[in-house]
Amino acid sequence: MTNFSFDVSATDGAARRGRVTTAHGSFETPAFMATATAGTVKAMTVESVRATGAELAICNTYHLMLRPGAERVAELGGLHKFMNWPGPIVTDSGGFQVMSLASLRKLTEQGVTFRSHVDGSAYELTPERSMQIQNCLDSDITMCFDECTPHPATHEQAAESMRMSMRWAERCKAAFQPREGYGLFGIVQGSVYPDLRAESVEALNLVGFDGYGIGGLAVGEGQETMFHMLDVTVPLLDGYKPCYLMGVGRPDDIVGSVLRGVDMFDCVMPTRSGRTGQGFTHGGTVNIRNARHARDTRPLDARCHCPTCANYTRAYLHHLFRTEEILGPMLLTHHNLHYYQSLMQDLRVAIEEARLQEFAAKFLEDQAQGDIPALDKTEPC
Amino acid sequence: MTNFSFDVSATDGAARRGRVTTAHGSFETPAFMATATAGTVKAMTVESVRATGAELAICNTYHLMLRPGAERVAELGGLHKFMNWPGPIVTDSGGFQVMSLASLRKLTEQGVTFRSHVDGSAYELTPERSMQIQNCLDSDITMCFDECTPHPATHEQAAESMRMSMRWAERCKAAFQPREGYGLFGIVQGSVYPDLRAESVEALNLVGFDGYGIGGLAVGEGQETMFHMLDVTVPLLDGYKPCYLMGVGRPDDIVGSVLRGVDMFDCVMPTRSGRTGQGFTHGGTVNIRNARHARDTRPLDARCHCPTCANYTRAYLHHLFRTEEILGPMLLTHHNLHYYQSLMQDLRVAIEEARLQEFAAKFLEDQAQGDIPALDKTEPC
Repeated sequence: MTNFSFDVSATDGAARRGRVTTAHGSFETPAFMATATAGTVKAMTVESVRATGAELAICNTYHLMLRPGAERVAELGGLHKFMNWPGPIVTDSGGFQVMSLASLRKLTEQGVTFRSHVDGSAYELTPERSMQIQNCLDSDITMCFDECTPHPATHEQAAESMRMSMRWAERCKAAFQPREGYGLFGIVQGSVYPDLRAESVEALNLVGFDGYGIGGLAVGEGQETMFHMLDVTVPLLDGYKPCYLMGVGRPDDIVGSVLRGVDMFDCVMPTRSGRTGQGFTHGGTVNIRNARHARDTRPLDARCHCPTCANYTRAYLHHLFRTEEILGPMLLTHHNLHYYQSLMQDLRVAIEEARLQEFAAKFLEDQAQGDIPALDKTEPC
Repeated sequence: MTNFSFDVSATDGAARRGRVTTAHGSFETPAFMATATAGTVKAMTVESVRATGAELAICNTYHLMLRPGAERVAELGGLHKFMNWPGPIVTDSGGFQVMSLASLRKLTEQGVTFRSHVDGSAYELTPERSMQIQNCLDSDITMCFDECTPHPATHEQAAESMRMSMRWAERCKAAFQPREGYGLFGIVQGSVYPDLRAESVEALNLVGFDGYGIGGLAVGEGQETMFHMLDVTVPLLDGYKPCYLMGVGRPDDIVGSVLRGVDMFDCVMPTRSGRTGQGFTHGGTVNIRNARHARDTRPLDARCHCPTCANYTRAYLHHLFRTEEILGPMLLTHHNLHYYQSLMQDLRVAIEEARLQEFAAKFLEDQAQGDIPALDKTEPC
């Protein structure tokens, strides 16, 4: 039935170089998705997103079910047509946002009832309804509806939460409508407890999915613990399926996770930072609002080939953020997404050339150097 | 000394088809400038602005003198380099914004002292300082520093204000530093009084400028009065110089003004409307936030060839504005600027083909028709 597929073309240690094929085309892995929460990558045109090298977008079930509504999107021809993104689309299940954004939520074995953060109207989200919504959205990769276990959680809390998510995963699988080229991913939970992570993987493997998300990480446990959880989880997963670390992360999180075998990532960091003046560079992050950039005629990142770095100075970007001009977020978001996509491309090539360890070491060394020294100028008359 | 030039290639009644050549290239007239107040066309990249057909940008002396500062822009290489706009740039003189935005302003024969609306710091703007600032900005077309006479004004008030502006125009001419390809425009004032408009033109002609702005219109006097002022003013101006109607206007204002011999226009309307959800179409303006568009799969304007109309539905634009996504202002601003530039192109061709009256009549007829009827759909299950 399904021609949804994952082909690994090279490995380097635990890291994999591959390609996922879906009903709306393929994407190279390791992949970083463009975050298009409400059906748009904030402050970017689709053409600009494409130009950064992004092949995969992730949209948000919770936001889209509230506005414009899942059935409305279906009526308008599905997300690809609606947002003019012909390539592959992942949708999250809505669980994470229901827990963090909605008010008056009530969680039972059946699902979650809650009130919209937009207008207070009542909704219900269950495994079955989440599958139906993601079907309406025409998502290429549907994510199981789960509870993202809050951090910190006791072993007992984490076990209870994870086991309910595993029961929900079975219901998702039963409710998911198989279509050629469309995939359903299970999501591993279990908080910071290796035994629970292993139990979760076992439960998911028993049901069988087209790929596996690792959820409930990057929620405050710290990078070391997160990496440890990957070390104990990824080897247990079906290696013939793509592995997606949800909501991660900073560039060094991504490099460390690729080293541990993760194939897919999504994170609001490059877009959100791009709107607040934080730029990612080969020398670490730069706050462009800082006064030291006001007279700096150098690009944000001399090693970057994006249009922002090719055409604009730090001084101009600084001016745009200080005057709250929309072009500031537009140019910096473009740069940040380009930076992330270039990093993914570098990682893919490093795996192909079996020099990922070396690349990662050099990457961390560059990041540790920090930003270039400020220009020392005297005020002209 | 100056190769700043204006060449008229065709006329149709009072309307002219021409080209202005400056130190940073030429632009075809009648021309509509892209408004880049603080050194950026709001919600647009330079590439997108270019793609609409805009050849000329207008920046704002008042805003740029406050942030980042005129001398700072000079130090950074001038406006063209700063904002990555290699083409011709007009700068206004700052007079209009000082009157409307600054606080605690004090107007004397010498000039204006005021406090910044940003941080309250004190500034002085005089004809001489305005010329110096516009020189720092490296503006191709410098506008004289004048007082935009408030509306309504008595004949006496208007005369007094206009005569001071004419004395200031002399000082501007004396202070302006002639450079090859750079022009200085005088500005006609005189409120709604034909005799004062005539006196103002006479004073400016005596000094001699590279072009003439018509100021103090579109400030509440109404279209009929504005057109009447053009009827009594434009014929008195040196026909070998470009005529620029400042701050105008709506599409029908522009069509009527081109018919009366105006060559250049600027207005925040297409960009500002683009950010608030108002779209310009061949059938008049459309408020995309209106609920009637929520399920409308048609483009904003079926006759428009911009990327927004080619790739997106009214339903999607409606969604973007309802969810306050930045892409909404980006796409609608692009459309509106494209609409304005297409109108200018149509006007230029109509003049060349000596059918401007016919074009104007058809244009007004289309506008009067209003928006296309709403789709009549029943809610699907």
